[in-house]
Amino acid sequence: MISLAELQHRIDAGDLSTEAALAQSLEAINAKDKAIGAFVCHADHLRATNAGPLRGIAVGIKDIMDTAEFPTEMGSPIYRGYRSRGDAAVVMMLKQAGATIAGKTTTTAFASVDPTPTLNPHNHGHTPGGSSSGSAAAVAAGMIPLALGTQTGGSVIRPASFCGVAAIKPSYRLLPTVGVKCYSWTLDTVGLFAAGVDDVARALSAMTGRPELLLPSDIPTPRIGVVTQDFAGAPDTSGAEALQIATRAAEKAGASVRTLKLPEIVADAWSAQAVVQEFEAHRALAWEYREHHDAMAPLLRAKLDETRDTTPAAYDAAVATAHRARQALETVFDDVDVLLALSAPGAAPQGLASTGDARYNRLWTLMGVPCVNVPAVVAEGNLPVGVQLIARYGADAGALAAARFVEQALGR
Amino acid sequence: MISLAELQHRIDAGDLSTEAALAQSLEAINAKDKAIGAFVCHADHLRATNAGPLRGIAVGIKDIMDTAEFPTEMGSPIYRGYRSRGDAAVVMMLKQAGATIAGKTTTTAFASVDPTPTLNPHNHGHTPGGSSSGSAAAVAAGMIPLALGTQTGGSVIRPASFCGVAAIKPSYRLLPTVGVKCYSWTLDTVGLFAAGVDDVARALSAMTGRPELLLPSDIPTPRIGVVTQDFAGAPDTSGAEALQIATRAAEKAGASVRTLKLPEIVADAWSAQAVVQEFEAHRALAWEYREHHDAMAPLLRAKLDETRDTTPAAYDAAVATAHRARQALETVFDDVDVLLALSAPGAAPQGLASTGDARYNRLWTLMGVPCVNVPAVVAEGNLPVGVQLIARYGADAGALAAARFVEQALGR
Repeated sequence: MISLAELQHRIDAGDLSTEAALAQSLEAINAKDKAIGAFVCHADHLRATNAGPLRGIAVGIKDIMDTAEFPTEMGSPIYRGYRSRGDAAVVMMLKQAGATIAGKTTTTAFASVDPTPTLNPHNHGHTPGGSSSGSAAAVAAGMIPLALGTQTGGSVIRPASFCGVAAIKPSYRLLPTVGVKCYSWTLDTVGLFAAGVDDVARALSAMTGRPELLLPSDIPTPRIGVVTQDFAGAPDTSGAEALQIATRAAEKAGASVRTLKLPEIVADAWSAQAVVQEFEAHRALAWEYREHHDAMAPLLRAKLDETRDTTPAAYDAAVATAHRARQALETVFDDVDVLLALSAPGAAPQGLASTGDARYNRLWTLMGVPCVNVPAVVAEGNLPVGVQLIARYGADAGALAAARFVEQALGR
Repeated sequence: MISLAELQHRIDAGDLSTEAALAQSLEAINAKDKAIGAFVCHADHLRATNAGPLRGIAVGIKDIMDTAEFPTEMGSPIYRGYRSRGDAAVVMMLKQAGATIAGKTTTTAFASVDPTPTLNPHNHGHTPGGSSSGSAAAVAAGMIPLALGTQTGGSVIRPASFCGVAAIKPSYRLLPTVGVKCYSWTLDTVGLFAAGVDDVARALSAMTGRPELLLPSDIPTPRIGVVTQDFAGAPDTSGAEALQIATRAAEKAGASVRTLKLPEIVADAWSAQAVVQEFEAHRALAWEYREHHDAMAPLLRAKLDETRDTTPAAYDAAVATAHRARQALETVFDDVDVLLALSAPGAAPQGLASTGDARYNRLWTLMGVPCVNVPAVVAEGNLPVGVQLIARYGADAGALAAARFVEQALGR
C-alpha cells in the first residue's frame, strides 16, 4: 500500500516531487485496476498543486460524490453520464488542502447493497465489501494513498475490514455531506480510507483544518471496553478471532481492557437503525424509485418495495429510540475511553453476490460516533479481518489515537 | 389570495375540476406576474392528477430546489440553465400527494441576502423579503395556493410577514432538504407558504402523510408566552404594534398570556447562529466561492469574504452553545404551549436594496423548533406585519393550532 504519511515526509524533505508522487499513483492505477475494477473512471494525467498538506496525494472519490471534472454516476444507469455543477464539499476540502483527485471509485447503486464488479485485492474470489467498494479496494491494492467513502449502515468500516486498510467513519457531520447523494440524512457519513491509522489522521486533519486530529507523538494508553453486540448475532470464527487477538494485544501493550455490556436502549437502537435508514431512503430516492423503478438495482428495489409502508409513527419511534440511546451511550464513555468491537462478522464472503453484512456497524452509524478500523488478523484465503475502535461523539482524536495504539500493539 | 382549503372543499364536492383549479392559478400567474416578478419560470400548461389530497393544487418551488422539469438556477448566473437529474425530496412529496408544480419562484442568490427583482404585492415600492421572495409574493398576490421556501436565518417567516401570508418553518428535518441547495446543513429548513394557517396545515399534512398535523375541529386554547428577544435589539413601531395587538387578541379570546424571559444561554445561541451559518456556508459553497468568486452575488461574497477566517474552534463553540440552548428551551415549554414573538422587526423596508432583517428569526432556526407566521396588522403603506407562534421541537401540530387560535382571535 502507499503510505500517505511517507509521501508527506518525502515531499516535505524534498526527496520526492509532488508530480512524481502523483505519477506513482497513476502508474499503479494503470497497472492494477484492470484486474481489480476499483475505478469507474480516472484522469489520464494528474496535475499537482504546490501548497497544502495533501499536495502530491492522489485521492479516489466514491462515485456518489459530485465532481465537476468527472461524471458522477451513483453506480446506477439512471445517472449514466451525469455531470454535477460543482464539487461536493469534501472534494473541495481535499483540493483546498492541496490534494489531487485521481478519479471516481465504484459504489453499489446509491450506496446500497447491489454489488459492483470490484474484486478484493487480497483474494479475487471474494467481495471487497460495500458500498464504498472501489475506495477500499483502490487503497488496499496500493493504487492510491487516500480515498473517500460513505457509511449509512456499514459502508466504510466493513469494506476497510475486508480489504485490510485503515479507515475512519468520523463523528456525524464532522465532514459535510453537501454534494453527496443522500440515502438517509440521519445516517450518511463521509469517511476516509488509507494504509494506516496515521495516514487517516493526517488526511482528516488536513481536510478539516483541525490540527488536534493529528496523532500525538506519545500515544496515550487507552481504557478499552470490549463489546460483542450480541443483539446483532454471533460473529464468524475469523471475526471472533480478530476481536480476541486485538483484545489480547491491547492488554499486553498495557491497556486496561474490560468487557462491557451496552445498555438495553442501545440494543433497541440497533433495531431502529434499519427503520430510520429505509424510511429516509424512500424520501431521498423518491424520484429514482417512482420515475425509474425498473432501472433501480434489484436488491435495492426489493428493499424499498418491502419497506414502502413504514409509517411516520414507526419512524418517529425509531428516531426517539436513537435519541435516548445516544444519551445512554454517552454514560458508557464515563468509564472507558473507547470501545473495541468487530468491524464485520468475519472475513469477506466468497463471491460477488453479496457485499457482506453491516450488522456490527449499523448501531454506531446511528449513534453518530467515530469508528476507526484497524486490520487485526489475516484469515484463511489471505483475507484480512479488522476490528473497530469507537469513541464518544466528537472524540475523533481519541478514536484515532486508540486505533493507533491497537495497530501498534498488533504489529509487535 | 387562493385558499387551498377552499379549493380542496370544492374539488371534493365536485364543484370544481382539478383542471379548472390549476387553470385558475395559471391565469392568475399570467395576469399578475409581469408586475410582481415572483416566478423565474413556469409551465405553459398545468396537468392535473386525479388522486391525492393536493390534486388541483398548483405549487411554486423556490429556485434552489431540484426539479427535473424546470431549470434550477439558484438565483445565480453560476447555475444559469442548470438542470438537475431528478426532483428534490419535497417536490416528490408534493407530487405524490397529487400536487402540480406550477414553476420556480425567485430566490436571492443561494438563498442569501442579495435581493431579487420581485416586488411586494401589497406595495410595489417595498421588498417582499427574502430569501424565499418569489414564493411569498406569489401566494400573497393570489397567483398560487401553495409555495415552498427555505429558512436558514429568517427566509420563510420574514417574507411571510412582509407579504401577509401564513407560513410554517417546521421542526428541523420534518421536511427533508435532499435536492435543496445547501447553505448551512445545521440550519436549512424547508417551509411552506399559503393563504391561511389551515391551508398550511393541510399542505404539510398531505406532504408528510401525517394526519395529526391537520387542525382539530375544536382549536384548544393555548398557554402563550410572549418573548421580545431583547438581545436581538428593539423592533420598529409597526412590529411592536403587531406583537401587542396579537397579544391582546389572544388574551381577549381566552388564552393565558404571560411575558417570558428566555434563559441566558438561549440569548447566547442567538449570537452563535451566524457563526454556524457562515462557517458551514464556506464549506457548502466552497466550489462556487473558489471557482466563481467574481460571479458570486456581491452581498453574499462580501459576507463570505468577511467570515472566511472563522476557526473550527469557534464553530465548535457555537454548536455547543446551540446544543445547550436547545436543552434550556425545552424547559421553557414546560410552562407554556407556545411562544409568541415578532416575525420581523416591522413592515417590509422600502425599496429593493435589502430583503430586511432576520434578527428575530435566527434563534428559532438554530433551535430547530416549528414557527408559524400569522399576519397581525396592516401598517402604513398597506404593508402587512406578522407575528410568529413557536412550539417545542416536534410539536408542529401545536404550533399550527396555536397559530390558528391567534389568527381567529385577530379576525374577530
